[in-house]
Amino acid sequence: MKLKLGIPKGSLEQATVDLFRRAGFNITTSSRSYFPSIDDPEVECMLIRAQEMARYVEDGVLDAGLTGRDWVIENDSEVETVADLIYAKQSFGKVRWVLAVPEASPVKTVKDLEGKIIATELVGATKRYLAANGVTAKVEFSWGATEVKPPELADAIVEVTETGSSLRANKLRIVETVMESNTQLVANKSAWADAWKRQKLEDMRMLLQGAINALGKVGLMLNVNKENLEAVLGVLPALKNPTISPLSDGQWFAVNTILDESTVRTIIPRLKQAGAEGIVEYPLNKIIL
Amino acid sequence: MKLKLGIPKGSLEQATVDLFRRAGFNITTSSRSYFPSIDDPEVECMLIRAQEMARYVEDGVLDAGLTGRDWVIENDSEVETVADLIYAKQSFGKVRWVLAVPEASPVKTVKDLEGKIIATELVGATKRYLAANGVTAKVEFSWGATEVKPPELADAIVEVTETGSSLRANKLRIVETVMESNTQLVANKSAWADAWKRQKLEDMRMLLQGAINALGKVGLMLNVNKENLEAVLGVLPALKNPTISPLSDGQWFAVNTILDESTVRTIIPRLKQAGAEGIVEYPLNKIIL
Amino acid sequence: MKLKLGIPKGSLEQATVDLFRRAGFNITTSSRSYFPSIDDPEVECMLIRAQEMARYVEDGVLDAGLTGRDWVIENDSEVETVADLIYAKQSFGKVRWVLAVPEASPVKTVKDLEGKIIATELVGATKRYLAANGVTAKVEFSWGATEVKPPELADAIVEVTETGSSLRANKLRIVETVMESNTQLVANKSAWADAWKRQKLEDMRMLLQGAINALGKVGLMLNVNKENLEAVLGVLPALKNPTISPLSDGQWFAVNTILDESTVRTIIPRLKQAGAEGIVEYPLNKIIL
Amino acid sequence: MKLKLGIPKGSLEQATVDLFRRAGFNITTSSRSYFPSIDDPEVECMLIRAQEMARYVEDGVLDAGLTGRDWVIENDSEVETVADLIYAKQSFGKVRWVLAVPEASPVKTVKDLEGKIIATELVGATKRYLAANGVTAKVEFSWGATEVKPPELADAIVEVTETGSSLRANKLRIVETVMESNTQLVANKSAWADAWKRQKLEDMRMLLQGAINALGKVGLMLNVNKENLEAVLGVLPALKNPTISPLSDGQWFAVNTILDESTVRTIIPRLKQAGAEGIVEYPLNKIIL
Amino acid sequence: MKLKLGIPKGSLEQATVDLFRRAGFNITTSSRSYFPSIDDPEVECMLIRAQEMARYVEDGVLDAGLTGRDWVIENDSEVETVADLIYAKQSFGKVRWVLAVPEASPVKTVKDLEGKIIATELVGATKRYLAANGVTAKVEFSWGATEVKPPELADAIVEVTETGSSLRANKLRIVETVMESNTQLVANKSAWADAWKRQKLEDMRMLLQGAINALGKVGLMLNVNKENLEAVLGVLPALKNPTISPLSDGQWFAVNTILDESTVRTIIPRLKQAGAEGIVEYPLNKIIL
Amino acid sequence: MKLKLGIPKGSLEQATVDLFRRAGFNITTSSRSYFPSIDDPEVECMLIRAQEMARYVEDGVLDAGLTGRDWVIENDSEVETVADLIYAKQSFGKVRWVLAVPEASPVKTVKDLEGKIIATELVGATKRYLAANGVTAKVEFSWGATEVKPPELADAIVEVTETGSSLRANKLRIVETVMESNTQLVANKSAWADAWKRQKLEDMRMLLQGAINALGKVGLMLNVNKENLEAVLGVLPALKNPTISPLSDGQWFAVNTILDESTVRTIIPRLKQAGAEGIVEYPLNKIIL
Repeated sequence: MKLKLGIPKGSLEQATVDLFRRAGFNITTSSRSYFPSIDDPEVECMLIRAQEMARYVEDGVLDAGLTGRDWVIENDSEVETVADLIYAKQSFGKVRWVLAVPEASPVKTVKDLEGKIIATELVGATKRYLAANGVTAKVEFSWGATEVKPPELADAIVEVTETGSSLRANKLRIVETVMESNTQLVANKSAWADAWKRQKLEDMRMLLQGAINALGKVGLMLNVNKENLEAVLGVLPALKNPTISPLSDGQWFAVNTILDESTVRTIIPRLKQAGAEGIVEYPLNKIIL
Repeated sequence: MKLKLGIPKGSLEQATVDLFRRAGFNITTSSRSYFPSIDDPEVECMLIRAQEMARYVEDGVLDAGLTGRDWVIENDSEVETVADLIYAKQSFGKVRWVLAVPEASPVKTVKDLEGKIIATELVGATKRYLAANGVTAKVEFSWGATEVKPPELADAIVEVTETGSSLRANKLRIVETVMESNTQLVANKSAWADAWKRQKLEDMRMLLQGAINALGKVGLMLNVNKENLEAVLGVLPALKNPTISPLSDGQWFAVNTILDESTVRTIIPRLKQAGAEGIVEYPLNKIIL
Repeated sequence: MKLKLGIPKGSLEQATVDLFRRAGFNITTSSRSYFPSIDDPEVECMLIRAQEMARYVEDGVLDAGLTGRDWVIENDSEVETVADLIYAKQSFGKVRWVLAVPEASPVKTVKDLEGKIIATELVGATKRYLAANGVTAKVEFSWGATEVKPPELADAIVEVTETGSSLRANKLRIVETVMESNTQLVANKSAWADAWKRQKLEDMRMLLQGAINALGKVGLMLNVNKENLEAVLGVLPALKNPTISPLSDGQWFAVNTILDESTVRTIIPRLKQAGAEGIVEYPLNKIIL
Repeated sequence: MKLKLGIPKGSLEQATVDLFRRAGFNITTSSRSYFPSIDDPEVECMLIRAQEMARYVEDGVLDAGLTGRDWVIENDSEVETVADLIYAKQSFGKVRWVLAVPEASPVKTVKDLEGKIIATELVGATKRYLAANGVTAKVEFSWGATEVKPPELADAIVEVTETGSSLRANKLRIVETVMESNTQLVANKSAWADAWKRQKLEDMRMLLQGAINALGKVGLMLNVNKENLEAVLGVLPALKNPTISPLSDGQWFAVNTILDESTVRTIIPRLKQAGAEGIVEYPLNKIIL
Repeated sequence: MKLKLGIPKGSLEQATVDLFRRAGFNITTSSRSYFPSIDDPEVECMLIRAQEMARYVEDGVLDAGLTGRDWVIENDSEVETVADLIYAKQSFGKVRWVLAVPEASPVKTVKDLEGKIIATELVGATKRYLAANGVTAKVEFSWGATEVKPPELADAIVEVTETGSSLRANKLRIVETVMESNTQLVANKSAWADAWKRQKLEDMRMLLQGAINALGKVGLMLNVNKENLEAVLGVLPALKNPTISPLSDGQWFAVNTILDESTVRTIIPRLKQAGAEGIVEYPLNKIIL
Repeated sequence: MKLKLGIPKGSLEQATVDLFRRAGFNITTSSRSYFPSIDDPEVECMLIRAQEMARYVEDGVLDAGLTGRDWVIENDSEVETVADLIYAKQSFGKVRWVLAVPEASPVKTVKDLEGKIIATELVGATKRYLAANGVTAKVEFSWGATEVKPPELADAIVEVTETGSSLRANKLRIVETVMESNTQLVANKSAWADAWKRQKLEDMRMLLQGAINALGKVGLMLNVNKENLEAVLGVLPALKNPTISPLSDGQWFAVNTILDESTVRTIIPRLKQAGAEGIVEYPLNKIIL
């Protein structure tokens, strides 16, 4: 039995292969083939555009696949969401599809778009959004470079953005958020109902989440004398549970913990003040919480 | 006293430099010089083609060198094999030299090559193989692109292959395996008899093997309550000997072990089911078994 | 409150960004902006040429910055030296500015340069050096490629060098060392007197030094039986303080220590001889001594 | 007054800029702007996807633009065809959109597709083609890599091809040609009716055609004695009209003509046999027939 | 006897080598040497920074060299201007050094800079310009990226610009033009007084100008019947002198002329209307007017 | 009928394709195939290493091929030399195989090599050369980097060189020239005896030579008044035969000639002095003398 898995071709492709490698699966893509090899004999991969992924997972051509929540909604596909794969760096950040207009445009809300032309790659979701707001407008499919279309080629656009910087660079103003999105592992409904495939997908989720957890986290080891132990533990974040081992001399303890990389720079100076010695930071591959 | 060491120039060069760096030796190559520098004052390096390495080690120009077993045999060199350096990825995999013919050729065994033309880079070993099988054929030295020669320029070839995919792409069929090969550290017989050089080579072997052992392996740390300890240890491979340390609260244990990266994805979900907590995977540089 | 920090543009730029990342600060440069972003809301970065850094730190345009000691001296700037950032690899090595002449030149000491032409990028420091030696000579600012100027375009040069190899390649002979230099973190005098800024700079120094300490060092874990413990500890460098934890069986100990990467290759074989088992080397990010 | 001209963004972009340069117009594109500059103050350029060009020319946002005949038809746009720009090399070749199925498929004609799934980038034209043939099938928009979809993701595809080699590489068989296409200069109907714009477009057509004519053609000069003149002229293609000038000695003639580059290699040896001397071939920029 | 010639290293280097090649001199540079080879045994080349060129030409280290007029003036060098090498494309355009301030600055003229800080690479010329205007200000040498210095690091800058676009991108406003500049061939005064060197330099000037003349120009050949000759000649620019040759049939003429590439696109349609046939445009290498 | 033609793979490959394109044949190579396509239906190409070409031409696998004279001799092949293709630039220069030794070696002539080790890629020719000189020495096949072998790995080498600079860089001294070589078009003896193939090869030779002739040559056109005609013609090289056409005014002549690019820079100034006007230099593709 095999799990048929769709890997998103294009901008997410390399990030997905990297994430799976960190999770313990080696996927080898080749510019000549749409069937990447994977070192797990129970899985079979296929490269599919993120835009089409949900369609093929819904139809059962694939048992599961990675794609954006946006394209699941755009295709209006009935699929099971197995995991949200979110990590701000490494291409797995949260994004928004926003309605944007030229800075100087009089448009203030979606209501002001009655009778206007809107360019977008997300035609279906945009039409449903307009309908939900009682607005009638012409929605044109944009083959790319949507942001340079207003004002000559469109009155407004619905476009994806992470920080808004590309919109600002094109002198566009965000009017409203149409949809939020992030990368997901989605599964076909029947595959999810199958015991073997579901177990396989749940294991995969645990490992992918473990790899994502480790991004932006590091390990910290330190030694501390019995009398400073409490002070040192007081510096560490309350919610974390450090591993405390007695050393063989009976007076010292080794403390080992996991920290957010971004907090290390404030915590290390405090640990040192509290009496920690031999503080060592080391890298991690996976964390299963 | 210095150990004169040959580094293989060409396809193995970068992989060899990387392996030595992991083993603790920094070799710096330069496109302008055939004498790479190394940060060990007891070693002197020279870049030599893998095909010529065994010849110069046998002659004593070098004390030792890295090359393929195939070229040791091709040159019929009397050298000491210090270590087999095998790791499937990173250019140190096992390879085979095979006798191959066009898919449509009537040739079924080496016996069918009587009077034919065979192209190969490995002229000496091929001639000896034919002689051992009682076959007389013309063996032509091939300067490269051997796989495209049949059927126009040769009836058969003897060529190196790892997965056979390049042979298949050229519509060739493997008839027999002529020789298996892998990268070796070989030494001059007199150098091996010298106590100082032998100790140096044995230390180097330990460090190179330590670095190769660490490829494809990872460290795993976890915490487990006294009552789940047995179940957790039951999930770990029997042959591995995990380090088990009592934590300071007297109820929990820290378990630290080394695992094959490829087994981690099946073991982690089982560890979690068995009650392991705070499972953390971390990278390794060297493992001395 | 913000700390205004100068990042050296050009040859040190990438190495500086890498060092800060290892220290826990993510700096993002962009080819379109001279104001890199940093993930610490208390810091504001600006890209400045190393040659001009000390001038702007002295003036208070910046609170602190990274530059070479050479340019601090050349600009004769009154700044506070917060840290010397020295690590032989990774662009943070020690360098020397030397007085050099053609191999065949009769010049033996700086005294022989009376009335000669000297080309250099370091006009101010060179003039002061000549004056201190009672020599009158013409010092010309060199826009680059200083090493190829003698003998046609100059009688001598004052030029920076790490290993002297570029001077030798241009057939120049070193006469004297004019100045030694390395990368420094320097601060404005008033900023250093400000409590908040000083604390911020001291924390930054601890993290930068921690990251530099970890370069060229590795962690080593091993298990050892009670009876071999003393022998194993005898192999480890006397000044290091290994962490020794009893294992749960009561007969074995886990030893964990930090070593110079360059000593590992001599220590590991001795540890094995002394009875160490399961020796594992792992990478580190930071070490706070 | 300005002519607003659409330049196709993407695969045709560089070829279009090159063709205009050969025609005498220097277009400068920038990765930061969708408004390339052109050294003709009477023209204003905009980069538009070929797929959307006809839509915007029809609407009058642009006066004219370069695009493929295929996308004019797909968009069902009412525009004026000013010129067919055809040259086999340099991206301006003729292409076909073909209906293709897996080699092993039982499909023999479009009639056999009743109820099947067809993937294509050209949804509109494909639906009209099926309707014209009385076939009902599901036409799915393909976001790319259409050729790898059969048989898993589609039963058939409608895809563009020049030589068919990519289809063969994906083991697809061509069933029928749906449409032929080539690059065109198309104009808005009102712009074409405007005297100034029409004159501008007709001049542009003459220069673009002149540049295309010169591709694959060369100039040939030779000297010939009066008595060999007829024989030499007999070798030249009948339809060409060479320029024959008397030389000052009264006995010789200079002959200057334009030839297809591909015929030169058969004509030159014949010219030499017929008595031509000093045969010189030189390159051309433009030919206005 | 040899002419010692300075080739500008850096941004002008490749353009200079290309210009000399078009002029008939093949200069071969190498990344390892500052002495490019040239295929004229009477010339010896040396790579020198444009900023230092005039200094070394004045001193007689070089007989002649290419540099910008700006650096001749900055160095206040007494040299002979042999030729102005101006062509808008190919790096030989005219440039201006301008005084610029932030868009929002109150500075309106150079007079408003009293007591301010001005950053520039052109310290000498800037100081003289200020003195000539009776202004006292601090002029700081800028090591690069001068345009991003205002307002934090300087109140105003003096910077080179061709189109002003980089200044606008940095939100700077041009106050005044300090100096105009272009590339020049300059000679040492004594070399210019030497008959052999002067002849050599004058020949070089003729060939360099011939190559520059040919940039942006093309050749045009056409045939015309006796009765249309006058009309066709009327279309050609009055100042050009076309070559008119009678063809051997006595009724037709061949016309050959040189035109600006940028006028060809307006002239060709008019020539065709006037009765020209077989119009052919061809490329040129050099034009000696 | 087809002519089977070998194209040299490797360092000569691109230069050969370029030369054929200039000669009028478009060869398209692909990294995936050893059978380049050519736009002449009477020719079939195959990529073969230059070292093996003569062997396969002699055997009749190929009708003809391009290779070096050196490898024809090394393989001792009986083939017909159709053309020597020599042009100093563009990879078709003359080269020498030389016997070289370390600068400090006592070897003065080939006679001094008795009993020594010689490394070379050209084993056969070297052995014959030694035999002809009555010298017995060990000749070892070198897989590359032959120049760095002396003195450690060989006493002398036989190596190819164009300018000797690589030998000098490796501190080697040339002792004798073993052989001169250049690129040749060679044919199989039977193919050369076949009338159709011979005509095809002779046409190909004319076109290849025509393309080589045009390298380094340019066309020159000028106008001259009747009274200056003789003076102008006196400046042109005596052996060239310029084309002189009377202009329509009866007083002027157009002169058109072909010159070596390297002489143009001395001739143009003299032509101008002699009264030539409107001197124009233009590029050429082919010259059939």
